[in-house]
Amino acid sequence: MKTLSENKCFGGVQGVYSHASKATGTDMTFGLFLPEGVEDGPVPLLWYLSGLTCTHENAMVKAGAQAHAALYGMAVVFPDTSPRGDGVADDEAYDLGQGAGFYVDATEAPWAPHFRMESYILNDLTDLLFSEFPLDAERQAITGHSMGGHGAITLAAKSPGRFRSVSAFAPICNPSASDWGRKQFAAYLGSPEAGTAHDATCLVRKGALDAPLLIDTGTDDQFGDLLKTEALAEALAARRAEATVRLQKGYDHSYFFVSTFMADHIAFHAEALAR
Amino acid sequence: MKTLSENKCFGGVQGVYSHASKATGTDMTFGLFLPEGVEDGPVPLLWYLSGLTCTHENAMVKAGAQAHAALYGMAVVFPDTSPRGDGVADDEAYDLGQGAGFYVDATEAPWAPHFRMESYILNDLTDLLFSEFPLDAERQAITGHSMGGHGAITLAAKSPGRFRSVSAFAPICNPSASDWGRKQFAAYLGSPEAGTAHDATCLVRKGALDAPLLIDTGTDDQFGDLLKTEALAEALAARRAEATVRLQKGYDHSYFFVSTFMADHIAFHAEALAR
Repeated sequence: MKTLSENKCFGGVQGVYSHASKATGTDMTFGLFLPEGVEDGPVPLLWYLSGLTCTHENAMVKAGAQAHAALYGMAVVFPDTSPRGDGVADDEAYDLGQGAGFYVDATEAPWAPHFRMESYILNDLTDLLFSEFPLDAERQAITGHSMGGHGAITLAAKSPGRFRSVSAFAPICNPSASDWGRKQFAAYLGSPEAGTAHDATCLVRKGALDAPLLIDTGTDDQFGDLLKTEALAEALAARRAEATVRLQKGYDHSYFFVSTFMADHIAFHAEALAR
Repeated sequence: MKTLSENKCFGGVQGVYSHASKATGTDMTFGLFLPEGVEDGPVPLLWYLSGLTCTHENAMVKAGAQAHAALYGMAVVFPDTSPRGDGVADDEAYDLGQGAGFYVDATEAPWAPHFRMESYILNDLTDLLFSEFPLDAERQAITGHSMGGHGAITLAAKSPGRFRSVSAFAPICNPSASDWGRKQFAAYLGSPEAGTAHDATCLVRKGALDAPLLIDTGTDDQFGDLLKTEALAEALAARRAEATVRLQKGYDHSYFFVSTFMADHIAFHAEALAR
């Protein structure tokens, strides 16, 4: 692991690190905020998964998470959204290839060799974080924005017991029925239908999500039709799942929206992590 | 004036606008956060002047000001740091020319035709803001980061009575004695010495600052030697000026530092603006 930068921030340290990932076969970069007092014992960890076109950096500098994580003594990790580099497949579209890993393990050419973001998050980066930093593996929570909201909900549903709470900002809720999902699942997995195993709405319908869930989505989200919030809201209510879905009047898809509700999300996770 | 974007943010609106400036002879872009409830009457205005290489956008997306401004019902304007465009002089160095206006009116070629940031801020943009938006001209405060901290203190000192409070994050404190200043004053004004009229330390020594001042600077600021905080601290103490200079242990020059202390600065200005 290599330290790229460390900046003091809200009493803690915002670091950026890189490491060789077995899952992706590439070097991967991530941001990690460690709160003040981390030396006194392991601290809980919140995962923040980012959306299309983002790197580890966008949320780290724009979402305002550190202020609130510092209040609760919580670490926050900001992984990248895909493998990157010259030997890594890519596509001209902003929503396929580098910057658009969709948090699945690709099975199809040319993506299969490197696009293994589910394994990267749940195995490689997890192993690295808990071996290198004073983090408490028993107290993990997960959140994300847009494609990262899809990642947060689906990775939590696919790893029962791992995350005590799950939240999402404007998540892609039903990608196997959306243009934000069908194309990517076809490319990475061979068919849009293969994506149902990685679709928040489908997973919730099967009762796979075992952690409390908080979702915020703006009523003026410019990508509202692609998110399909209504499908997940229906599935959650039908399953009587412990969930809150808030439609926030006038907000759009930007970090101005994300940062506005960050305090609520971190308080929600802090409550679950304190139990 | 043209609206480039408007995003709902912390109950208010973060807008980006452009307008033709007489002072610079160019189109200028600025960000403006208007808090919720602005329609009920004019609200106070905090100016945030940015540092070298920044546009109107950096602080607007990274400094975390809106969260705190929203709490106090305060507007925040984020001006650009220089004129820009094809017909505008520039230099290869990051600290001269476009992105490095230093908040003075240039008198020398090739800068004089467009580099008039003091007039732009104090006249053009001021006139536009108070005619186009429900802002209270009697309740203005000013802050800034690095070169923008220099701008905040010096523009306040040069316009007595206009700003009720002044603050700065890691300001350039004594530019006429620093490599961040001497080169620029020589280029824009003809000599480093001409910069003493635009130097926070020199202005404070003359008793020109009539508003309370708050400064935060990190002990690990990588540009600490260029800032010359010690000169301004000495001048403030010698003048018995109403000022607080805080050296913050372990912090550097980044927005991670700025965002950490933003809440304190906005609370400081809110108190002055409530009087």
